Amino acid sequence: MLDILFTDITIITMEDDKPVINRGFVGVIGGKIAHVSETAPEEGAARKISGKDKLIMPGLVNTHAHTAMCIMRGYADDYALHDWLYKKIFPVESRLTEQAVLAGVKLGFAEMIRFGTTSVSDMYFYQLAAAKFALECGIRANLSNAVLALSPDFDFETDRAVAELRELLKSFHGADGRRVRADASIHAQYTSTPDVWKKTAKIARDNRLIMHLHLSETKREHEECVAQLGKTPARMFYENGVFGVPVIAAHCTWLSEEDMEICAESGVSCAHNPVSNLKLGSGIARISQMQKLGMNVSLGTDGCCSNNTHDLFEEIKAAALLQKGTTGDPTVLNAYSALKLATVNGAKAQGRENEIGRIREGFDADLIVLDLDAPHLYPVFDPLSTVVYGARGSDVCMTVVKGKVLYENGEHKTIDIERVYDEVEKYALPLVK
Amino acid sequence: MLDILFTDITIITMEDDKPVINRGFVGVIGGKIAHVSETAPEEGAARKISGKDKLIMPGLVNTHAHTAMCIMRGYADDYALHDWLYKKIFPVESRLTEQAVLAGVKLGFAEMIRFGTTSVSDMYFYQLAAAKFALECGIRANLSNAVLALSPDFDFETDRAVAELRELLKSFHGADGRRVRADASIHAQYTSTPDVWKKTAKIARDNRLIMHLHLSETKREHEECVAQLGKTPARMFYENGVFGVPVIAAHCTWLSEEDMEICAESGVSCAHNPVSNLKLGSGIARISQMQKLGMNVSLGTDGCCSNNTHDLFEEIKAAALLQKGTTGDPTVLNAYSALKLATVNGAKAQGRENEIGRIREGFDADLIVLDLDAPHLYPVFDPLSTVVYGARGSDVCMTVVKGKVLYENGEHKTIDIERVYDEVEKYALPLVK
Repeated sequence: MLDILFTDITIITMEDDKPVINRGFVGVIGGKIAHVSETAPEEGAARKISGKDKLIMPGLVNTHAHTAMCIMRGYADDYALHDWLYKKIFPVESRLTEQAVLAGVKLGFAEMIRFGTTSVSDMYFYQLAAAKFALECGIRANLSNAVLALSPDFDFETDRAVAELRELLKSFHGADGRRVRADASIHAQYTSTPDVWKKTAKIARDNRLIMHLHLSETKREHEECVAQLGKTPARMFYENGVFGVPVIAAHCTWLSEEDMEICAESGVSCAHNPVSNLKLGSGIARISQMQKLGMNVSLGTDGCCSNNTHDLFEEIKAAALLQKGTTGDPTVLNAYSALKLATVNGAKAQGRENEIGRIREGFDADLIVLDLDAPHLYPVFDPLSTVVYGARGSDVCMTVVKGKVLYENGEHKTIDIERVYDEVEKYALPLVK
Repeated sequence: MLDILFTDITIITMEDDKPVINRGFVGVIGGKIAHVSETAPEEGAARKISGKDKLIMPGLVNTHAHTAMCIMRGYADDYALHDWLYKKIFPVESRLTEQAVLAGVKLGFAEMIRFGTTSVSDMYFYQLAAAKFALECGIRANLSNAVLALSPDFDFETDRAVAELRELLKSFHGADGRRVRADASIHAQYTSTPDVWKKTAKIARDNRLIMHLHLSETKREHEECVAQLGKTPARMFYENGVFGVPVIAAHCTWLSEEDMEICAESGVSCAHNPVSNLKLGSGIARISQMQKLGMNVSLGTDGCCSNNTHDLFEEIKAAALLQKGTTGDPTVLNAYSALKLATVNGAKAQGRENEIGRIREGFDADLIVLDLDAPHLYPVFDPLSTVVYGARGSDVCMTVVKGKVLYENGEHKTIDIERVYDEVEKYALPLVK
């Protein structure tokens, strides 16, 4: 007996040999995908869901987010980068309490779930609280607290981020069948030292973790590194062993071709954040070139101060459009390739390529359903085009993680959204304003 | 007695001296805005609408669309420009019947209304049918059929587009208190001749019409004009009197600075189509520079084959992001300026600056209401930021044109959307496939 059966539904499988099944059946049992076919399964189902005017696809994977920053959504837009960081963002962050951050995490996860994101690589602080809430609300999450070593007194052994990573490893890493995981994290080349990188990489290696970091986001940080050290940030990380573990490198806006080759060789994934990079004036990452040179490229929304939403559909479309617009070639990053960024490639970046990212029997049942009964999604000639160039998060009518329904038709099933608003109002907003 | 009164609502007025009223009242009577204030009017209202968790703003103005092309939405994505046009789009267009185009117009207007567009400058063919439907469904529309003179046998007097313009002028121009208007239209520099331009401009001048045309969309068309004629398309139009009437010039992707000066001096508005320009690989128009040089810049969605939606919120955000990302300056085109593109500037481009584009007493009541009760729109620090960087068409819960409610909470009030789908299915799809 299946738990859920989607009947007569358009399926985007994200399998290279057959990415679309125009009308088929998807069955779920025990949190896993148990049936994907053009024909109905023989067994019955506890719940049957009609696929009329619906499309089912893998849940989206957000590989770079500072989720809790949504408590500052719209608080500091249209500022120059330095003023934005030093006058607006950092002062607020220095005041944030665990309660405030947790309220932000709740709001952000609620938004992600509503918009079809089922797995997120989050980098922020107070991750123990975030891990606990991820377990509760059902989202899949890789959580990290980035080590920053700006002070000369920095001590790795007593650093808060390091302590938090160790605590995450002890209490949450691998929880609920790997649904919640810890990532190691270095904030960026310019915010710490080779000694810190080596120690953090050792923890990652010893525990087989992903390393999550920022890489060459702005021209300035990239060029200052070259000017001061004679090498790019990517080469610095590479030579100091950071790229000896699987890495999610956020942004990569200013990577040189040689950097891309180093990253490809080392298995570094670029978490591309097209909206954030534009909004902060950082530029447009050359992801087509990265892919040509063999890099894995996935997508992220970054923080809501530079976006201002966690809608991965927007990032998918932006990524595809920007590569076409800047290369002058409309055939670059076609709909299927663009959708891979937020599914298959995201799963790979997270170290979850055998778990999620495709609708495949045996994979975890991280699924989203889109309602196609809307003027902007009609007609459908090619479901991949419809999703990439037409759909947005608000078209998601159902979000499922590990077989559990987290959102359906306007209702969060695991999050009390009104209470979340109250918590943001009470714990977070007074610290922002 | 007011027809409608919005109470305790966040108002984006788009008045330079006070663009936002955090909590106020908007009253409508006889199709006009009759009350805009922080205080309630003394008179009663036939219908009161609570503004709790709501925001009201001027309806959006789309100054460049080929609305009916939504029947080909997703039909020809990711093709090289020449193949796209000559192998996919033109062959279908040559087969289109009036019924097929009308079905597309209905679908497109329905999408626009649902996503908060209240006024559109449409360029396509069979505009008499479109005009009739615009009158019925309540949208505000400037309609044009572009003159193309590619054949050596072209005869202005018997040309279908010219005949249609004359018929529009006779039967529909100015209908319902100027709600439906005819525009004159030349397709582009490279698709006709100075003789045709002069004759079309004369009709525009004689009837005080806007001229709607394409200008320097692709690098190739721009550079070929310069190579063959020694002048840019803008200069060609200017010297042949086309810019002697108010012009909406779509795209302007490759305008030179001198072109921008000519356009500014002549009162030519650029209808910027950021999504379409990226998707077709045409490039990124330098609208910040255009504005600096005094040009009016508005927004368009273009056709759905190069977009694939008619969501102006997406264009607003794309326009703002692209200027920040390409100039490297995040302060460029701030939220208020970006929102002007789709309201005040759009109204000006359409020749409707004293009619729509602001919430101002005496203006026509073209209003949209956004539902802010959603995780991605919370919290609100600045309603302008919320709308520009967070909102999308699907957040619109009410669309009003000339005081008449066209859409509300998931329901079209003037369009039978199921019937529209049937008409597209019946009349249009067989001609596309």
